Amino acid sequence: MNPGIKELKVKLGKRSYPIYIGEGLLSGTGAYLERHEVPKRSPVLVVTDEHVAALHLGIVMQDLEMKGYKAFSHVVPAGESSKSLAMLEKVITAALEAGLDRASTVLALGGGVVGDLAGFAAASFMRGIRFVQLPTTVLAHDSSVGGKVAVNHPLAKNMIGAFYQPEFVLYDVSALKTLPIREIRAGYAELVKEGLIWDHNFALWCGDHADDLLSLNQEALIYGLYQGCRIKSLVVSQDETELGLRAILNLGHTIGHAIEAVSGYHEFLHGEAISIGMIGSAKLARYFDYQENIYTETKRLLKAFGLPVRLPEHYGTEAILKALMHDKKFTEGTMTFIIPKNLGEVEIRRDVQSAWVREVIEELKKKE
Amino acid sequence: MNPGIKELKVKLGKRSYPIYIGEGLLSGTGAYLERHEVPKRSPVLVVTDEHVAALHLGIVMQDLEMKGYKAFSHVVPAGESSKSLAMLEKVITAALEAGLDRASTVLALGGGVVGDLAGFAAASFMRGIRFVQLPTTVLAHDSSVGGKVAVNHPLAKNMIGAFYQPEFVLYDVSALKTLPIREIRAGYAELVKEGLIWDHNFALWCGDHADDLLSLNQEALIYGLYQGCRIKSLVVSQDETELGLRAILNLGHTIGHAIEAVSGYHEFLHGEAISIGMIGSAKLARYFDYQENIYTETKRLLKAFGLPVRLPEHYGTEAILKALMHDKKFTEGTMTFIIPKNLGEVEIRRDVQSAWVREVIEELKKKE
Repeated sequence: MNPGIKELKVKLGKRSYPIYIGEGLLSGTGAYLERHEVPKRSPVLVVTDEHVAALHLGIVMQDLEMKGYKAFSHVVPAGESSKSLAMLEKVITAALEAGLDRASTVLALGGGVVGDLAGFAAASFMRGIRFVQLPTTVLAHDSSVGGKVAVNHPLAKNMIGAFYQPEFVLYDVSALKTLPIREIRAGYAELVKEGLIWDHNFALWCGDHADDLLSLNQEALIYGLYQGCRIKSLVVSQDETELGLRAILNLGHTIGHAIEAVSGYHEFLHGEAISIGMIGSAKLARYFDYQENIYTETKRLLKAFGLPVRLPEHYGTEAILKALMHDKKFTEGTMTFIIPKNLGEVEIRRDVQSAWVREVIEELKKKE
Repeated sequence: MNPGIKELKVKLGKRSYPIYIGEGLLSGTGAYLERHEVPKRSPVLVVTDEHVAALHLGIVMQDLEMKGYKAFSHVVPAGESSKSLAMLEKVITAALEAGLDRASTVLALGGGVVGDLAGFAAASFMRGIRFVQLPTTVLAHDSSVGGKVAVNHPLAKNMIGAFYQPEFVLYDVSALKTLPIREIRAGYAELVKEGLIWDHNFALWCGDHADDLLSLNQEALIYGLYQGCRIKSLVVSQDETELGLRAILNLGHTIGHAIEAVSGYHEFLHGEAISIGMIGSAKLARYFDYQENIYTETKRLLKAFGLPVRLPEHYGTEAILKALMHDKKFTEGTMTFIIPKNLGEVEIRRDVQSAWVREVIEELKKKE
């Protein structure tokens, strides 16, 4: 193995798996499958989207075939609309037509959408076959850790899914070079989040290295993504099925999801919406015992990445509140918010009053 | 609890659950939910089919409401065609509209189709919520143990699903009184199978008590279903995700599924098809080290229940063989057959030659 490759173990008992992070890894996909004893007699299916297919599918398929794998591919349209039951059925059709069996493997080559769709296909095909993640976006550093896979229901996102862990994650940071800069920025929103919820020093490091990260400096990139994956895996290891601690990963997501829902998932990328959501959470901190500088620091970090920190005025406050009440994170009608206490420390609060949220959403729309 | 109620524990570590078998249990569904600490603040959803709804939904809903549960119901068309992704989406829609959250429970009231559909809905809704089985058929004694839930893909049965265990199974044998006799017979095919694969004495007991079982004598019924569930749970406990031993539960299923596929799932009920399949397996035993009387004994037991033991002549041998090669149980192209060795003992064989299968299928069509 290339010495520049960082390896991280996500600890989940029998379902533990490694994440490999480094440059040029996709051209060695076959060797990693061999290392993980993926059998060659059963076909494997690479699921990807049309954008990623044009850039990276060729090299993956070529390598798999060279190593003697019977590799098939299935390309879905790019974008969130592919996270549907109809698309799931098409992936399963492709799996059946390619002759996949119980010893087969599904490889998800792409970002969060492909990972979620292909992951749920792997989780449910014949009640579960092997699954490998090949993330190609910054954001996927987050979605590839923790085993949450799902498709959307017309009424709400991620409603139909599973907790399903991959065999391994092969994270080729060279693939990020082909991403639009807006997507890169949005991906770093989750990285900043990981610092904010868990690691004071890493949060500050993100702020100091925003330019390196945005320009995809390989050293900064590998270190940053490694730390992001590490933090997420520590949280997930302690709470695989999101019963408690794992909720802290939703910092900024309660308001963020509501913004996405109201915008019809068009105006903002996910990372942009949660950037605004994190600003909202930092504002909510004032109603609790908190560190004074939390709001200015959160804003400074997100602005360093060029992420949005204000909500456009045309968003109706009541519409956001209504969407927020429907978010699936409200067990038994109680609103759950992740509230920062200090840089690198958050609390799960169920006593946030809707009046406070209303006030904060109004403020988010004002120039400061 | 009524002393006439038999309780059986399916041992699966953290996912262990009890099966309660007795008369008139459905009218006490609410008390069982309470006993299993199903919270009342989150709505529960009863999924059933139109036939069962007409007979048993009222009493269940009434009892749940009386106990203070916010109970909703969703009725699907009766029959195998409800095991589809389209129907799954409708169940999820009903769950969302009823306001189900992560602390909610799905109750499957019905036979195998409802159990499979509602079970997969529970497994995938918000990545998994609580699930309770209320079987109303003989056959469901089999499908309610082991956690296999799934919907069908247009190309093959049970292709999209999960291993997902219920909180508990409440098996009200009084519900069986409303079943057509043909369905009752077919249900006993799996019971005979459980004797054949595991328990010599129980196999003989089934033969001796076929008339009692067919007339739904309550004592025989409760004892027989308890033993069937017990055998299945012993097998499942040792192999939850069907990697090895669990395959023995497929006695008669390899040929049975092929017959079902060729008939377009119309001519035979599942139990009838596997009855013919078990005769086929007993015939295949002659190519191995086996007990001489296995074929005549298997035939005698199945005939005692009035189950079919011959394949109608219009079934093409090649069509059956072709369907058999596509059955999902063929990992890496190797045909797996469960072959009886003795009454109550079987072997998993991967060395069955297709010529033998062809010969046996031809024989199955002949009068003897």
